[in-house]
Amino acid sequence: MGKVYLIGAGPGAPDLLTLRAARILDRADIVFHDSLVHPEVIALAAHARIVAVGKRCSQISTDQRFINRALVEAAVRHETVVRLKGGDPMIFGRAQEEIDALAAAGVDFEIVPGVTAALAASADLGVSLTRRGLSRSVVFATPRIGDDQSADVEQRGWARAVAAAETAVLYMTRGDATVLTAALKSAGLVGTHPAVIVERASLPDGQRIACTLDELPERVRQTTGGPALVILGEVLRETVEAQIDAAAEGTQRSQKTANQ
Amino acid sequence: MGKVYLIGAGPGAPDLLTLRAARILDRADIVFHDSLVHPEVIALAAHARIVAVGKRCSQISTDQRFINRALVEAAVRHETVVRLKGGDPMIFGRAQEEIDALAAAGVDFEIVPGVTAALAASADLGVSLTRRGLSRSVVFATPRIGDDQSADVEQRGWARAVAAAETAVLYMTRGDATVLTAALKSAGLVGTHPAVIVERASLPDGQRIACTLDELPERVRQTTGGPALVILGEVLRETVEAQIDAAAEGTQRSQKTANQ
Repeated sequence: MGKVYLIGAGPGAPDLLTLRAARILDRADIVFHDSLVHPEVIALAAHARIVAVGKRCSQISTDQRFINRALVEAAVRHETVVRLKGGDPMIFGRAQEEIDALAAAGVDFEIVPGVTAALAASADLGVSLTRRGLSRSVVFATPRIGDDQSADVEQRGWARAVAAAETAVLYMTRGDATVLTAALKSAGLVGTHPAVIVERASLPDGQRIACTLDELPERVRQTTGGPALVILGEVLRETVEAQIDAAAEGTQRSQKTANQ
Repeated sequence: MGKVYLIGAGPGAPDLLTLRAARILDRADIVFHDSLVHPEVIALAAHARIVAVGKRCSQISTDQRFINRALVEAAVRHETVVRLKGGDPMIFGRAQEEIDALAAAGVDFEIVPGVTAALAASADLGVSLTRRGLSRSVVFATPRIGDDQSADVEQRGWARAVAAAETAVLYMTRGDATVLTAALKSAGLVGTHPAVIVERASLPDGQRIACTLDELPERVRQTTGGPALVILGEVLRETVEAQIDAAAEGTQRSQKTANQ
């Protein structure tokens, strides 16, 4: 029997992979990867058979039970089996179902943690998620996980958790922004609460849009549709105000040009 | 003028460093590091002058203003300046003060995210921090940050944030466990709430103690005093119950032996 490694591939940039993950990939026999994993990371598994499973972090394309079974079967035939997930496996990575399946089948496994997207987004912004005197709690939440339809009570739960923490990072699915803003306002956040949308964190074509909670639905529509996070909190106030000032200056400049 | 890299050294194990961090360390001229950073990580900066600053993640030994000034001065004299912090710089790493000082001095800088301790602790346990149908929010909080003495209102704030999230990870300072348990119970958690103390996450001599919230103060006293996290939440219920069952079995075995 081989061993299965559940590996966090990090937020996007291939060099934000850990040394341990790179070494395991180098000797991997077979790799099952999500589609959010960078091709250069997958290429590190030079000798392995590569199997794409799953479309996007929170959507399901390959059935989870199929993946569970495939991992167990691969461990029978191969020494080093890798399950490669975007970000960190233990934060919205649906790792528990695979861990439970491996444990039930008596397959040896190891989790290799990775850099989760929120930390890369914070690094891109140059804004710390915690700050002395301003934020001693940061929550990572998602309004919907996979095909979970027991949404109603739990949705209010996540919104309450977001409103109670000083900083929040939403690992969101697309199309939720209007519902999301409404849920957060009913949980106690004000419309002027600072927010930043971070798209494709850590990648060269990454985008950051600072706005207020009220502006969020409109701004989300302006994004390109890549994987995105929303960060909320007072730690972002200067970032949001600087962007508003820059926009106002831009408008004044356009008006001046128009008046000339 | 050189460039300053604020780098997350990861949770402890040296091979949980990112590839990017390793490459920057290899060409670093000077490295300022916290004492929680593994010696093998520091050794990657083979050509650099090494300066130890700061004792433990949440305590201050070297004055923060001194570190800020030292980073700016180093950037005048060196091409590649590294500030190496345990875990990730943007989660309880006090990065903002250094970022602001660098920005104010016009020094070019870059943040390199790292694997934060909570993710390594979750990997060690084999328990995902989020789980479909059980947890769609995870909060990272600390009851006290550095020398911040505006504690009272904020302390209640973090306890409320912890109680509102489905999973919580406390990046705690030592000696707080009794206050911590009382604060969390007054914020709404029950005494039987599942908890696990994870000491020295990701390291070979790491220790994990599963218990309930009520048992936490006593169990924290049994730890060795190394860097520790406390994880709380329903995702841990099976882990805690398995440990209680194992302990009960152990007691029965001892009693049988005594009766023989």
